[in-house]
Amino acid sequence: MIREGIQDVRALAFDVFGTVVDWRSGVARAAQGVLGPYGVETDWGYFADRWRARYEPSMAKVRNGDRSWVKLDVLHRENLVEVLNEFGIDHVEAADTDRLNLAWHRLDPWPDVLGGMHRLKRRYLLAAHSNGNVALLVNLARYAGLPWDVILGAEVCGFYKPDPQSYLRLADLLGLPPSACMMVAAHGSDLRAAAGCGLRTAFVRRPREHGQGPREQVDPTDPFELVVDSFEELADRLEG
Amino acid sequence: MIREGIQDVRALAFDVFGTVVDWRSGVARAAQGVLGPYGVETDWGYFADRWRARYEPSMAKVRNGDRSWVKLDVLHRENLVEVLNEFGIDHVEAADTDRLNLAWHRLDPWPDVLGGMHRLKRRYLLAAHSNGNVALLVNLARYAGLPWDVILGAEVCGFYKPDPQSYLRLADLLGLPPSACMMVAAHGSDLRAAAGCGLRTAFVRRPREHGQGPREQVDPTDPFELVVDSFEELADRLEG
Repeated sequence: MIREGIQDVRALAFDVFGTVVDWRSGVARAAQGVLGPYGVETDWGYFADRWRARYEPSMAKVRNGDRSWVKLDVLHRENLVEVLNEFGIDHVEAADTDRLNLAWHRLDPWPDVLGGMHRLKRRYLLAAHSNGNVALLVNLARYAGLPWDVILGAEVCGFYKPDPQSYLRLADLLGLPPSACMMVAAHGSDLRAAAGCGLRTAFVRRPREHGQGPREQVDPTDPFELVVDSFEELADRLEG
Repeated sequence: MIREGIQDVRALAFDVFGTVVDWRSGVARAAQGVLGPYGVETDWGYFADRWRARYEPSMAKVRNGDRSWVKLDVLHRENLVEVLNEFGIDHVEAADTDRLNLAWHRLDPWPDVLGGMHRLKRRYLLAAHSNGNVALLVNLARYAGLPWDVILGAEVCGFYKPDPQSYLRLADLLGLPPSACMMVAAHGSDLRAAAGCGLRTAFVRRPREHGQGPREQVDPTDPFELVVDSFEELADRLEG
């Protein structure tokens, strides 16, 4: 039997980086591919970690109103320049920096993703609700074969997650009350903000998101309706 | 050989009502299904025409700033109440009016659409760029099996076509210059506005859009790169 509170869910809104796709190994591979020919040798997973570490602070400036709206592609490009500086890599051509920035457009899904999504799509509307910009998400979907019904997210909603406006606008665009939308993510901060707006929530454990680094834990006080280890398990649980 | 000016096209943006789906017969069928049991007898194609006739004037009020943004579902609902009045139908339950309003969410594609779109999708990014709201377009895509890469359109862009901002925002969201986007439509006004913003244009003849009513003609002065009779022909022409 489907747990109370989720039987009215009509749409599943997915976080993408870390939840749907393995950004760390994809970005590490792309960085090696672009920077290796320059003679750079480093721990490429750590390079990806350091690039990703600039993601939250750079978006926070937009969320806080310290700078006006820019696409995530722009933030990624600025952050890449900073991380290249941090690693003392100062001789990369602009065209190669641009090319490396597109690493975020070509990332592999976790092994359970496609099978789970195709099952979930039979009963639910599947929406990408990521901080990635539309072009990034479209390219990622074509690269990875993600069967979205609709790509929404920060650029369409005009607010970066976890701004509450992002989740409320999502539900409005889907023509649904927030309680008919379930946010699916590997990150508690995303889900707690969604729950605060009345959305249902499903936490997906992605223990390898940060390689051997820290794993995100669910707190007993977290209000998530479901906690699962894969999209296949999510489909099992939602099928009751 | 692909005609000069269109070899750089990366994305095809489609008008939907009339271009992708046959709204007239679908709406007529739905109207008969909902209103027939009330004892209403009329020319259901003409009923659909009269409902559709209120579409442009109702959007114009939003475009002109005479009223603030509302979804097309809301305009359709208001227009439906007016057309029911026009036909002297005054005893329809609100729930049935709501149900009939969803006729625009369930329309059949023209026979060449699915085959053509699947061919075009191999090489091009396919975007819905309709005045329909997101929920309407998502429901329509699921009903008809339309393989969109992304659903954009008026609600996401914040402007009803043919406002130039609608086409410029489309290109911006796709991360492409306007000249890399081709608008595909059965309506000259849509394409002329798109061309004025620097998009490429393809006119698709849909001689049965208005049943036995007037057919939209291409003027020799129209700037369209392509004029075709079907999405299959569009795929042929773009494959060069």
